[in-house]
Amino acid sequence: MGPIPAGFAAGADGDLLIGRARASDLVREGTPVFAYDRDRIEEQIRLFRAAMPSYPGLKLHYAVKANPNPDLLSFIQPLVDGFDVASEREWHEVVRWDPMPISWAGPGKTELNVMDAVCRGVTLNIESEREFKLALQFWDREVRPPQIAVRVNPPFGLKGSGMKMGGLASQFGVDHERVAPLVRRIIEAGAEWRGLHVYAGSQSLSAEAVSEMQRATVGLAAEIATEVGATPPEVNLGGGFGIPYFAGDEELDIWAVGAALKETLDARPAILGDTKFVIELGRWLVGEAGVYLTRVVDRKVSRGKTFLVVDGGLHHMLAASGNFGQLLRRNYPVAVANRFGAEAEEEVTVVGCLCTPLDLLADEVMLPRAEVGDVIAIFCAGAYGLSASPQAFLSQAEAREVLV
Amino acid sequence: MGPIPAGFAAGADGDLLIGRARASDLVREGTPVFAYDRDRIEEQIRLFRAAMPSYPGLKLHYAVKANPNPDLLSFIQPLVDGFDVASEREWHEVVRWDPMPISWAGPGKTELNVMDAVCRGVTLNIESEREFKLALQFWDREVRPPQIAVRVNPPFGLKGSGMKMGGLASQFGVDHERVAPLVRRIIEAGAEWRGLHVYAGSQSLSAEAVSEMQRATVGLAAEIATEVGATPPEVNLGGGFGIPYFAGDEELDIWAVGAALKETLDARPAILGDTKFVIELGRWLVGEAGVYLTRVVDRKVSRGKTFLVVDGGLHHMLAASGNFGQLLRRNYPVAVANRFGAEAEEEVTVVGCLCTPLDLLADEVMLPRAEVGDVIAIFCAGAYGLSASPQAFLSQAEAREVLV
Repeated sequence: MGPIPAGFAAGADGDLLIGRARASDLVREGTPVFAYDRDRIEEQIRLFRAAMPSYPGLKLHYAVKANPNPDLLSFIQPLVDGFDVASEREWHEVVRWDPMPISWAGPGKTELNVMDAVCRGVTLNIESEREFKLALQFWDREVRPPQIAVRVNPPFGLKGSGMKMGGLASQFGVDHERVAPLVRRIIEAGAEWRGLHVYAGSQSLSAEAVSEMQRATVGLAAEIATEVGATPPEVNLGGGFGIPYFAGDEELDIWAVGAALKETLDARPAILGDTKFVIELGRWLVGEAGVYLTRVVDRKVSRGKTFLVVDGGLHHMLAASGNFGQLLRRNYPVAVANRFGAEAEEEVTVVGCLCTPLDLLADEVMLPRAEVGDVIAIFCAGAYGLSASPQAFLSQAEAREVLV
Repeated sequence: MGPIPAGFAAGADGDLLIGRARASDLVREGTPVFAYDRDRIEEQIRLFRAAMPSYPGLKLHYAVKANPNPDLLSFIQPLVDGFDVASEREWHEVVRWDPMPISWAGPGKTELNVMDAVCRGVTLNIESEREFKLALQFWDREVRPPQIAVRVNPPFGLKGSGMKMGGLASQFGVDHERVAPLVRRIIEAGAEWRGLHVYAGSQSLSAEAVSEMQRATVGLAAEIATEVGATPPEVNLGGGFGIPYFAGDEELDIWAVGAALKETLDARPAILGDTKFVIELGRWLVGEAGVYLTRVVDRKVSRGKTFLVVDGGLHHMLAASGNFGQLLRRNYPVAVANRFGAEAEEEVTVVGCLCTPLDLLADEVMLPRAEVGDVIAIFCAGAYGLSASPQAFLSQAEAREVLV
């Protein structure tokens, strides 16, 4: 199975501690439950700030799609410099913190989406020429012009990334060679050009790959800026910072990323001299802060194999079942929450309560012995967990979410 | 791409007809929308009745998990002989038709689940010895005894099935060699033994494989019955009837399944002489009756590849994106709903509006030219569609569902 994120420990009675809370207290009001540890999120943001260069124009945005839980958003809001949203409802969740910077990316924006963004002064990361036309159309000339950044489909991708999003034909952004002429049209039309957005991939554990992507992004931004003949107020460098999920994964060396970024920013071409740089992170900020707790409701031996059947399942943790973008199913880190740190005694397979063989949460892992009533913890559940799972599937019970 | 189910046609203006409705009318109140064609469901059930042997003890159950839409359930209820449910909420949806037969299968039943089933006289397909003990525990001796069928983990699986669920160590059911002793305990305890349930796999397009599974199931049931020394009132033969989704798929020969089942039932051992047989179907009854309609909101060319970006996506049709149990992503059948039947003119890639490259609905398919505002139809959307998708992902707009 994957490595349990560092820092999780057990109380004296073997009870897993999640931040300020004990797992046994968290499950008292019912399982399954997602617990998000605010201290861990804060520490991660502090680590980011410490490791990144102290360039005042370097900004951290939270990508709401990673975890849109309202309590988590309220907690993270004062800790970050802005939000990236990808839908109308995500925007509604964060617009209450206006004038906090919000940028809105995502293909397939509807007319209503573009209208809302333009009317409320949200930075629209346009993904196509059509979105530019819509923005002009909805511009009420008596108020502030549309705030438009252009999302660029770069000629490079994030190497070895879980999801490569550049270097290919893509639904995301405008092909890089078409960006400069589009920016000129934006400026000529009187809209406010906010800059460039490049998102070349996600979930990388290689500092070298992330750094190379950031270097290439700054280079590409400078080329486009030169072609346009204007300094982009902001360049969003994307994210791509991964977390370890699986056996053999090692954590991203954030200090190495920071050191390389310092070099990149120090050496940036003059045309980007006054540019702000944004890093948008979701998974890396909140992924390891989340733990999914689900209770064992049956323990079965079938043909020599021991199954723990839990009251949760892939309807809450689709990715842990291997059914979300993975080519090969591998085990997330798991533990027996009420015997945390106890010695592994037996090989078990943890399955969810759904009536489908897809509902496999941990296949043949070594765990301390667990009985009916014990609680299984699945780690790395803070990002792309509940909101990225088919919650209505088989009409099973809902999961609770708690910020601890 | 996969074959468009037979029977879909266009009106004079090229508008796709879904049963009694025109696609253009269905999308008027907003997209995305799932349309379920009641006539098609009814025809499918009629086809099943016609093809299956006229043995009066042969019953058809609807597996609610395939599509729990309340209107669809109300429509299908008088057409089937019972419901199979797999969760508390599924049970709540259908218990209003009491005394319609309901059986409740699924691993990981909670104490509350077992209590409800016992108190309301639902047939409990027990998946383990533990569920048997719980059933006894919740039995109020002054009322009807618990109705218990035993789900059997058979020594065989459904060959070539999309999901093999037998012949292996499994969380489903009780290993076949342990069933007879358990049934004896059920009878001795005074509970009402309702019979056996065998579900060996799903989504098979081979009549031979389905028939072999049914033959093997009847044989296994007879062996267990003989060992018990009693006739099971009911044997649930499972389902396994598949529908074509992908290129090269051919529809299941239901007449061949019926003919083989007649032979199997005619030749059944005497101990099963008075047994009722249940076939539980979900996907085969409703899958092809459903069409997902989603509007094109952008049309982009990136590096020579044409993308249609739609207002729906994998948050409604996860399986069409290839992220639900498929090893290799293949294209579902798709069409331009308002130019249905028009000649294919260009190769396009249809992507959803989610900000992730996973949101791929149809990759490099030939379609008539579609512009912004046109409507894409994805077929085979009636089963494991909306309810099996991560609807909250990226907080995008919800899909409507309409029974037409």
